Amino acid sequence: MQDDLARCKAAVAACLETALAPLGSMPVEEGMRYALNGGKRLRAFLVMEGATLHGVSAEHSVWAAAAIEALHAYSLVHDDLPCMDDDDLRRGQPTVHKRWDEATAVLVGDALQTLAFELLTRPEMVVSSQVRVELIASLAKSSGVQGMVLGQAQDIAAETSETPLDLAQITELQGHKTGALIEWSACAGAILGGADPTPLRAYASALGLAFQIHDDILDIEGDVAKTGKAVGKDAEAGKATFVSLLGLEEAKARAERLVEQACAALSPYGSRAEPLRDLARFVISRET
Amino acid sequence: MQDDLARCKAAVAACLETALAPLGSMPVEEGMRYALNGGKRLRAFLVMEGATLHGVSAEHSVWAAAAIEALHAYSLVHDDLPCMDDDDLRRGQPTVHKRWDEATAVLVGDALQTLAFELLTRPEMVVSSQVRVELIASLAKSSGVQGMVLGQAQDIAAETSETPLDLAQITELQGHKTGALIEWSACAGAILGGADPTPLRAYASALGLAFQIHDDILDIEGDVAKTGKAVGKDAEAGKATFVSLLGLEEAKARAERLVEQACAALSPYGSRAEPLRDLARFVISRET
Repeated sequence: MQDDLARCKAAVAACLETALAPLGSMPVEEGMRYALNGGKRLRAFLVMEGATLHGVSAEHSVWAAAAIEALHAYSLVHDDLPCMDDDDLRRGQPTVHKRWDEATAVLVGDALQTLAFELLTRPEMVVSSQVRVELIASLAKSSGVQGMVLGQAQDIAAETSETPLDLAQITELQGHKTGALIEWSACAGAILGGADPTPLRAYASALGLAFQIHDDILDIEGDVAKTGKAVGKDAEAGKATFVSLLGLEEAKARAERLVEQACAALSPYGSRAEPLRDLARFVISRET
Repeated sequence: MQDDLARCKAAVAACLETALAPLGSMPVEEGMRYALNGGKRLRAFLVMEGATLHGVSAEHSVWAAAAIEALHAYSLVHDDLPCMDDDDLRRGQPTVHKRWDEATAVLVGDALQTLAFELLTRPEMVVSSQVRVELIASLAKSSGVQGMVLGQAQDIAAETSETPLDLAQITELQGHKTGALIEWSACAGAILGGADPTPLRAYASALGLAFQIHDDILDIEGDVAKTGKAVGKDAEAGKATFVSLLGLEEAKARAERLVEQACAALSPYGSRAEPLRDLARFVISRET
């Protein structure tokens, strides 16, 4: 899987380079390049592996992969703002508002969101207009106020609430905040191939939750030198997390069961889905 | 024209109500409704009048009209943030970050941008997928880092620069910051009708500049009770504007000449384009 992931990273980097080539060197333009740099590219990998399973070549799926990474990058830049999570460090580097300023970070996030939609309209991705519209409509639904933004708003509301969230509420919150985009990523390849995304949606749903549980574990056990972002913040803030609600051991066991579920959901694809199964196992073993 | 504008306002309001109906009552959701409320709806009017000229019915064009108003509303909410223009008042009401808080304003703007793209995918707008993709691609181009966001970034850069902008620079800045979306609005109807948008683009280019010159005049001569936003801010900040560069009288004369140019560009449409000519004349006589 690491080879596939490295290939995916290189392909996404080339694609983003093409998209950003016309840009100049104003802070907002440099900030976009900066924010798009690095990252694990797990969402891009989901798109491209899902596409491979449906006979869509990397040459085309890479544009959808780059789109979801642009959208993810926008969400991180805005999430890191002082009025949101107030983070100084991201991917081991100063966050955009620390490197430049808040106004630039707002504009960088705004422009990255636009870029995500623009990438899905690129002529280099040869696909019918109908499929494009389906991808764009589902990305808007997954990332807007009925998807990711709703999860972010629920997260903010939880911070100021007197009663901590329970397990059902935190599962719902994370389903929106991180789950919706992971689901889009996993389904995009099937949509590109004109196929039914149901098995990939089931895979992504379990994977997204396992991903978030492992993130909460990293917040406790992680090493800032490896994660490249602050750790221990949630525990310090007394925030309800999967770990605070389940305990460390049960959280780990739950994440493992979810990975098994995710892998099982891929049975219609047989052994061809092995890279996606590897990814699921990687998600709960990663140190970053 | 006022009747047409009132009809357009009502149609856009109905359309946005449909789109927002599934939303709940969290601050981000209430903030979206709040930010979408009011406004002159000039951009929506451009879309719907341009559509009428090309035989596209209001029932369909209203979705593109609502999309541009959502995109415009996002830009205002983010522009008003303390780290950007730091405005307390918009359309006579407290700005979103004053009514709620900064985090909510960031999310409201983010979700309104997503909503703009989502509206262009709505099945109620019956149009080919190819035309949809064209609209979406051009909206992304007009609003992103090669359009509106570039203008906003240039505006921020100008504020911290030692040398004030000259006329060519301020014309370029405004062409991006406000001109790009006005152009998209005017061209959308032709695109929806599968026609050449060249005459409407020429109209919008002159109109957009006249609009901005008049905005600068309102910043000097305007009444906060009528404009519903702070006045005199640019002059106070020693910012270069069309008025500071041209003087009040020449700025007014220039705006009038631009309106004549805008009207002349519509000659291929004959008298059918009278509402758009009325709009151009209105733009430089408005008090708000």
